[in-house]
Amino acid sequence: MPTQLELAMNIMIRIFHQYSCKEGDSFKLDKGELKMLLQRELTKFLLCQKKPQLVDKIMQDLDANKDNEVDFNEFVVMVAALTVACNDYFVEQLKKKGK
Amino acid sequence: MPTQLELAMNIMIRIFHQYSCKEGDSFKLDKGELKMLLQRELTKFLLCQKKPQLVDKIMQDLDANKDNEVDFNEFVVMVAALTVACNDYFVEQLKKKGK
Repeated sequence: MPTQLELAMNIMIRIFHQYSCKEGDSFKLDKGELKMLLQRELTKFLLCQKKPQLVDKIMQDLDANKDNEVDFNEFVVMVAALTVACNDYFVEQLKKKGK
Repeated sequence: MPTQLELAMNIMIRIFHQYSCKEGDSFKLDKGELKMLLQRELTKFLLCQKKPQLVDKIMQDLDANKDNEVDFNEFVVMVAALTVACNDYFVEQLKKKGK
């Protein structure tokens, strides 16, 4: 029985491969696969955090690479950056409440 | 209803605060809190990956900072690094099987 944190790590690996295997290199996301992943797996969360422009920023950054591919390392860095942004928002709200 | 990836992000935030609030700065992990988190939340996963020395390496790196505190950003980077290591192992196994 995995712990909650182990479950979170398993999910990141599973979700990446669920989309990366759709076409082309099975171990990388092309732009279409990445866009589909973002739209299907992160939309609600980003809306909830009131920072939907974050996805546009990520897409722009990936465009700058010009290889149109995202490996697992880059994907995890993206998820980490989004999670930090969400945590910052959460902590800000907690501090406003004086906790 | 959150997606699986949103759930993973929520877990990372929740687990961090579950341990960081135990003593001292509520928004940072001291060494005791970090060690407890690693032992309780990641042991099985690391054993499964046959790379238990990874935790020692992380602890050493954190010691080098000498402030004995880990903020959320550093925690997420650590989880990301562990997840990449696990994914590398997973992909290696898949490639060996010729998939």
